[in-house]
Amino acid sequence: MPRWDPDARERLVAAALQLFTDQGYDNTTVAEIAEQAGLTKSTFFRHFTDKREVLSAGQEVLSRLFAEGIAAAPPEATPLSAIAAGLDRAAGAMTDFNRELGPRLHAVIATSAELQERAALKQVGMAAAMADALRARDVPPLTATLAAEVGALAFKEAYSNWVADDNTEDLGSLARTALDDLRASVDNLD
Amino acid sequence: MPRWDPDARERLVAAALQLFTDQGYDNTTVAEIAEQAGLTKSTFFRHFTDKREVLSAGQEVLSRLFAEGIAAAPPEATPLSAIAAGLDRAAGAMTDFNRELGPRLHAVIATSAELQERAALKQVGMAAAMADALRARDVPPLTATLAAEVGALAFKEAYSNWVADDNTEDLGSLARTALDDLRASVDNLD
Repeated sequence: MPRWDPDARERLVAAALQLFTDQGYDNTTVAEIAEQAGLTKSTFFRHFTDKREVLSAGQEVLSRLFAEGIAAAPPEATPLSAIAAGLDRAAGAMTDFNRELGPRLHAVIATSAELQERAALKQVGMAAAMADALRARDVPPLTATLAAEVGALAFKEAYSNWVADDNTEDLGSLARTALDDLRASVDNLD
Repeated sequence: MPRWDPDARERLVAAALQLFTDQGYDNTTVAEIAEQAGLTKSTFFRHFTDKREVLSAGQEVLSRLFAEGIAAAPPEATPLSAIAAGLDRAAGAMTDFNRELGPRLHAVIATSAELQERAALKQVGMAAAMADALRARDVPPLTATLAAEVGALAFKEAYSNWVADDNTEDLGSLARTALDDLRASVDNLD
């Protein structure tokens, strides 16, 4: 048994990833995922519209958390400080469950062009969610878009360090470090 | 007759877009595209692997042009100056044909989640191509990734202004302006 106490949603994700890894994404049905998780198909469909969504639901959740964190930043926060608040909010919601399953999820996505395409659209969507949240704070559009890209890069870099085997730092502090590194890189652009 | 002198490839793209627009992407076959262009199916397959590729081939070409322009920049060029050289190279290859068909291509892509997903992956690929070309110039990885995102944003902004109905500026000068605007935005991030 895994050491976390999984709810239905996490059990479905874990079961789906196990099956995708063992027998391939294309060969796996929703019925098999539900059975493997010890749940019914209708429970599956309360959480996900189809098996593809199991793989991209995390990116949707992250987009929402980024946007919430940015919206909740103090009014005087600079664009990158608001981004930092968004990264904090998202990092705070990521658990050991995410850390363990992330690399397996990426391995499954890497097996299929169709899955990579969907993941890319969600990735673009994460930056767009941050840019929208900044524009709602009256950050000028181009600055908002640029700050959002910096935020997306910071999260990607931090996440990739977080799931590394030898990492012991928490995701939030890795995200802060990545954002600081990007701030420093800005000075080397020209 | 259009005023450009289309070669087989351009005729195929124009025919495909016409059919996708008139009868829908899903309802259009490669045989119909070839017939509409006055060419054979085997000519189609010398240019494209399938009908989806008609929509993304332009992004592949741009990725190559960005990379070539960056590689050809003077050794002393800063990351953003090398990006500017990449944008110049790509802008110089874009013709009236691209300007006229671009908006119709985007309208077709907007009709289908599958097509949007593929376009997103190609978009991510364009930034990755620029970052790779910068790293080949010994630009540090994080700076290269950031500069590439700035370049991708500049091109996107310039392209969107270029295809606007009332625009009279050429794409190259619009790209320079967009890059300068982004340079200025960098100062407002913090």
